[in-house]
Formats: sequence, C-alpha cells, structure tokens
Amino acid sequence: VPRGRRPGESGSRERILAAARAVFAAGGYAEATIRAIAARAKVDPALVLHYFGSKEGVFAAAMEFPFDPAEVIPGLLEPGLEELGERLARFFFQTWDGPRGRPLVGLLRSAAGNQRAAEMLRDFVSEAMIGRLAAALPAANPRLRASLVGSQLIGAAVLRYVVGLEPLASASVDELAEWLGPTLQEYLTRAAR
Amino acid sequence: VPRGRRPGESGSRERILAAARAVFAAGGYAEATIRAIAARAKVDPALVLHYFGSKEGVFAAAMEFPFDPAEVIPGLLEPGLEELGERLARFFFQTWDGPRGRPLVGLLRSAAGNQRAAEMLRDFVSEAMIGRLAAALPAANPRLRASLVGSQLIGAAVLRYVVGLEPLASASVDELAEWLGPTLQEYLTRAAR
Repeated sequence: VPRGRRPGESGSRERILAAARAVFAAGGYAEATIRAIAARAKVDPALVLHYFGSKEGVFAAAMEFPFDPAEVIPGLLEPGLEELGERLARFFFQTWDGPRGRPLVGLLRSAAGNQRAAEMLRDFVSEAMIGRLAAALPAANPRLRASLVGSQLIGAAVLRYVVGLEPLASASVDELAEWLGPTLQEYLTRAAR
Repeated sequence: VPRGRRPGESGSRERILAAARAVFAAGGYAEATIRAIAARAKVDPALVLHYFGSKEGVFAAAMEFPFDPAEVIPGLLEPGLEELGERLARFFFQTWDGPRGRPLVGLLRSAAGNQRAAEMLRDFVSEAMIGRLAAALPAANPRLRASLVGSQLIGAAVLRYVVGLEPLASASVDELAEWLGPTLQEYLTRAAR
C-alpha cells in the first residue's frame, strides 16, 4: 500500500485531481470511490478527504465545477422552504454570471456531444444536487419536484449562456430570480393536484 | 434565369431541400431567403413556396424538424390564451415522444457542439416560435415571457431526452403537462410584479 503524502506536500493535490479525472472518466461518477482515486494518485484516502471533503468535492474540483454542492446546498436549504425557489435561482445565475461560471458552458457542451460525459454529469447532478434537494422536501414526489427545478434552471442556462437568446441573455439576475423564483417554489412546495 | 420546374417533377423537392441545407449552413437562418434557395436549386421561388409554404417550412423540412411552426403555432394559439400553457406543454412532449421527435435529439446535440448550428437553430426558434408566440401576448415583456416558456420546455427536453434523468425521463405526457402547464401559463399571462 503506498504511503499517503502529507497535506501541503507539493503536487499531491494536483495528482489527486488528475487521478480523479481518470477514475471518473473510466467508470463514471456513480462507480467512482475515494479509495480508487487515492490508490491511483498513490496517496492515503484521508488526504483526498482532507483536501476535498467528499466524492462530490473531488468531482467539483476535478471538473472545475464552480462550487461544491456538499457545501452549498445545505446552506441554501438552511433558512427553510420559504423563498427557497428564489434563493436557488439567485445563487444559480450569480454563479454562472461570475468568474467561476465560465467552465460550465464547456461542461454543458461536452456533455451534449459525448454520451459518457453526459452520464457522468447526470449522475453527479442527480446525486449531489437533485438527491440532496429532494431529501429536504416534505411533499409527495420529491425527486420529480427537484428534477423540475433542475429542468427550469438548465433550460434557462442553455438559452442564456450557450445559445445567447435575447432577451434572456441580457436579463439581470434580479429579473431572472423574480420570474423563475415563483416557478421553482411551485415545483418545490405546491400541493399535489 | 433558370425555368422553374413543375410540382411533382421528380427530384425537385429533394433538390430544394439540399439547396436549403447548403444556404442555411452557409449564411445562417436569418440571412437565408426563399429566392436564394430557389436559385441554388435552379427552380422558381414559387415552387419552393408551393412545396413548403414559407422559409420556416423549408427549414423545418430540411432539418427534419418534426413540425412547421408556421402551421402549428397558430393552431395552438387559436383557442385563446386560456390554458395555452397546458396546450403548449402537451403538444411539445407528444411531438418529442412521437416518431417524428427522434431527429430532435440529434439537432440539440449538434447545436451544443457547433457554434454555427447553434446560431442557426437559435434564429429559427427565435423567429418562428418565440417571435410568433410573443406576438400573441398582450402583457408587458412578451418576448421575455415567450423565451421563459422556451427555457422551461428546452430544459425539460434536455433532461428527459438527452440526459435521461429520472423520474423526468419516464414521466407521462399527462404528468408533464400537469406540472409544466401552470408554469408556462404564469409566464404567458401573469401580471407584472
């Protein structure tokens, strides 16, 4: 068994990220484990957790995903279900609009053109975001509700950032939150019909 | 000036479609004209209109788009704004789910991977569908409203048909219309806030 390197040891963080990209690409997101990534990087699994906190955190860092859902989603959920739709919309567009949002267009493009990349992104989004959101919903069909939230956000992102459709492309985050917030809130909390 | 061929003359329809694909690919959707397509196919412009009705109709046929918006959108609008959201959702998912929906996944994929294809599809969707829908809306910001409708439908299509995210991927058209109908209706008709 290779000895784990200590935090701060030069290059180990980058080596873990390269190993993670290889492990995710080879077996997909769902099959990947911290243990397999650590073994490939020749470090102790504890070091992977030390740097990245969780499998989601490693994936987010390896793919230049702009945030770690394991940290962000609980923070958005914390104030409760009221106005959660607006908080989600606001966070989503602020992140995409910000400097860390740029890799997302590339991620979407590669997912659209490549079946494996699409499956990897789907399993990450499904486990790390939709699953975590669904777990916080008391209403019936929580997974369908959380997927509908995802569908509205993804669709708006495709038209705004990939396709550049006006007037969506140049709407302000406030405007988007004002329109999409109530939609997401309905999906999250409306009574079954 | 080349003489137009008569309707029914063998091969002229296919020749127009090939010419249309070349003209759309070279200059994009917005710049293309019936006249340019006819010239390239060496037929009379009237023959292009005879077969396809409009530029939108030629584009839809050339790209194997499953319907001609110039025919379908007025039909959906005809009963009025009431329950328009549900009619749009139902038509959209019935079309994608049906046998003529299959080319749409390929269209989305090629648009995601190719800037020119994306612009072509954007300009078509923007003129032929969003523009036409917006023109029927009496409320403020009709184009933003129609784009939001498009964003929800596209997002649901990406997750259902391209990414295969459950439970969206196997939801019934009825279920989708029940969830998305009210969202689209809000976008179409809700009062400004």
